[in-house]
Amino acid sequence: MESIRILSAKVTDVRVPTSDALLGSDPFHKKPDYSSAVLQLETDSGLCGISVVFTVGAGTDWICHGIRDLCQLVIGSSLDDFSASPITLYRRLIDHHQLRWLHDGVFRMAAGAVLNAMWDLWAKALGKPLWKLLVDLEPEFVADCIDWRNISDALTREQAIALLQSRRADVERREQELTRQGPEAYCTAGWLGLSDDEILMTIRKLQGCGFGSFKLKVGLDSDLDVQRIRFMRDAIGPDCNLMVDANQFWGIDEAKRHIEQYRPFSLKWIEEPIARDDVLGYVELAQTFSNADFGFACGEHAASPVIFKQLLKSRAIQYCQIDAVRVGGVNDVMAIVLMAAKFGVPVCPHGGGIALCNMIQHYGMWDQIAVSGHSDTQLIEYIDFLQEALTHPVAVRDGCYVAPTAMGWGLEFDAQFIDDHRFPDGAMWKPRSSASKGVMFEA
Amino acid sequence: MESIRILSAKVTDVRVPTSDALLGSDPFHKKPDYSSAVLQLETDSGLCGISVVFTVGAGTDWICHGIRDLCQLVIGSSLDDFSASPITLYRRLIDHHQLRWLHDGVFRMAAGAVLNAMWDLWAKALGKPLWKLLVDLEPEFVADCIDWRNISDALTREQAIALLQSRRADVERREQELTRQGPEAYCTAGWLGLSDDEILMTIRKLQGCGFGSFKLKVGLDSDLDVQRIRFMRDAIGPDCNLMVDANQFWGIDEAKRHIEQYRPFSLKWIEEPIARDDVLGYVELAQTFSNADFGFACGEHAASPVIFKQLLKSRAIQYCQIDAVRVGGVNDVMAIVLMAAKFGVPVCPHGGGIALCNMIQHYGMWDQIAVSGHSDTQLIEYIDFLQEALTHPVAVRDGCYVAPTAMGWGLEFDAQFIDDHRFPDGAMWKPRSSASKGVMFEA
Repeated sequence: MESIRILSAKVTDVRVPTSDALLGSDPFHKKPDYSSAVLQLETDSGLCGISVVFTVGAGTDWICHGIRDLCQLVIGSSLDDFSASPITLYRRLIDHHQLRWLHDGVFRMAAGAVLNAMWDLWAKALGKPLWKLLVDLEPEFVADCIDWRNISDALTREQAIALLQSRRADVERREQELTRQGPEAYCTAGWLGLSDDEILMTIRKLQGCGFGSFKLKVGLDSDLDVQRIRFMRDAIGPDCNLMVDANQFWGIDEAKRHIEQYRPFSLKWIEEPIARDDVLGYVELAQTFSNADFGFACGEHAASPVIFKQLLKSRAIQYCQIDAVRVGGVNDVMAIVLMAAKFGVPVCPHGGGIALCNMIQHYGMWDQIAVSGHSDTQLIEYIDFLQEALTHPVAVRDGCYVAPTAMGWGLEFDAQFIDDHRFPDGAMWKPRSSASKGVMFEA
Repeated sequence: MESIRILSAKVTDVRVPTSDALLGSDPFHKKPDYSSAVLQLETDSGLCGISVVFTVGAGTDWICHGIRDLCQLVIGSSLDDFSASPITLYRRLIDHHQLRWLHDGVFRMAAGAVLNAMWDLWAKALGKPLWKLLVDLEPEFVADCIDWRNISDALTREQAIALLQSRRADVERREQELTRQGPEAYCTAGWLGLSDDEILMTIRKLQGCGFGSFKLKVGLDSDLDVQRIRFMRDAIGPDCNLMVDANQFWGIDEAKRHIEQYRPFSLKWIEEPIARDDVLGYVELAQTFSNADFGFACGEHAASPVIFKQLLKSRAIQYCQIDAVRVGGVNDVMAIVLMAAKFGVPVCPHGGGIALCNMIQHYGMWDQIAVSGHSDTQLIEYIDFLQEALTHPVAVRDGCYVAPTAMGWGLEFDAQFIDDHRFPDGAMWKPRSSASKGVMFEA
């Protein structure tokens, strides 16, 4: 087979004016406009490598700018070059001798977009969903995709290979099980803006779809939060899982005061109680609440495998919430999922936004088939939001994801959706240019 | 006095083709082109608020893109708005309800540029150098400039005020001392590419200028490094300070192996042995080498006050190397310098690049006059590189900085330098567009 060659990159700034309805808001992100930098790598084969970086409005153009710059490094290259050694492209991007000065955040997210689009293209060329490509990789090949420089003190290359090898005998059986019933999902029912009645309605609707785990946003008002937790615990009964999410709103001492009041409610986890990069803060919280029945969870804003390494190795977190687009693509996520498996921490990816659920379901499949090799403790976030934008929407049945069958990530967007929401000149934005300015200038 | 109003922002991508001579290279940044995103806030007063973000070539445009976007939030505002409450602008930037999704790196550096340009403008309006503006601020005002949310477990607002208050009696005397002789400087003599003879020549030249502290780049080759350390120790004698800098090249176990060999040479510090965000790694190194006579240093790549908080609170680092443009401007640096003072860790800022020394000298002055209140343990990095680009070059006399007297940061650039080095259309770049492409594509 002739190798597929990357001809050009199309990068689109897509924004949805969700702030109109205050959907998905939290204490910090008061008026998010769910958005995506959408990368399409066009090739000489007709196949297109697609990836997205989710953002919450302003700043999507920063990511687009970065992706366009980085795409210079793949245009003209072949898929064979990539698939022979994904770490080579990873290093050309993440360790670029000048661009690495830009660190995590915009730079690592943009680099991840390019890597994820190449992985997408590879899976499509093989005619496989992304998760199946990952499951079928040899343990040594997976290990070779990973940058070991800064994480070997927690997990060595040899340990990773041994871990993956030890699962091989069961992979076929696990794949059959997971294709019958995918990873278990959970959902946020307690959004900040909702009334008790609305929350109850949401819970009942989710229970009707088989959900048994529910999350609640907290942070602003301790009394109200405790009241809400009690309300939700009463509504779902003692056997369902209840989690709370503080979206990094507290300092450490404040977190301790709030969380102390949460002890009676048999919570499963406390999510993002403190700043995304406060590793020692997480260690301190884990020690303070070591006798509580809840654990700590974070990861959607952990900006690098090194942060995950510390949180896992120190046993500061009990749930590992990888994000699909915050770190350096599949390569970084491989490292994080493997480290989580070594420390016995369930991988419970962060979903929502635009198309994040479409991506994380692949990581859930890979983890539960080939890395941790079980489905006993993981929950994968699910929000049915904006799925109309995609040709292959995610599906949930009996509270579990339905194993995705589309090739690659399955990130094909509805063309009209992209056209309408292109910022700032799509049909959705043209008439509201002053409104969009208003959101940018919100204090 | 009528308040000064911001009329417009000029953001320029300035790059110097330093990679021709491999100046300033390290194991990761093999071919840096020293560069700056230069921000000029133009006002109705004739005064101009200037700041820079140093980069190493590719990626400067990413920072410029970000600064242009953020400047929307200050254009039309008045200096009075800012000077009445600098934290208000800080929050509008760093906690912007949509842009904060972009995290540290490009976003925080761009936000820092806007803040630093406003501080520059304020100092100019008062007719003071930046350091003098900081020294003259009331302790409560300084405390009000700081975002305490994520650092109060290490230093409270009240502790910061008490610390600054306790220095007030001595401030006048310290200011007189520091204006006579500024903060002590040190310099890198052992660049990777240099021969022994070249290093020796550099040392002798620096000693002739009164320098007593010298740094050496290490990392790639353990045997060669030890040989170099021995060579430099012999050259400078036992009484001078010798420091080594590994520029994050090692993993933790690798770092331990290398550093173990450094014990005999009475080094002052080991700089950046491991990844910039590996706080627990630094804790582990500090424990492993607790009986050695050197300490650990880092900070030029620490991306937020939260990372500094952890390194200081855990006593993992013994030298705090703030950078002038990596975090969120004066406000973030205030927090870090105050935390360092509380934990008794000397502030030894990172200099070099383009115009970093011009900025850090102000922080050194403020720290040594009004925060730590002494000059017993600090060393401030100095490199005499590219100072011809600036109207007010830094000066060193008898191995110490000469207290800067220009208003604000003193960051006025030579107009011809900016014109010549504007990327990609300045005279320096037009004829070398293909060469610049070569550096971008360097593996």
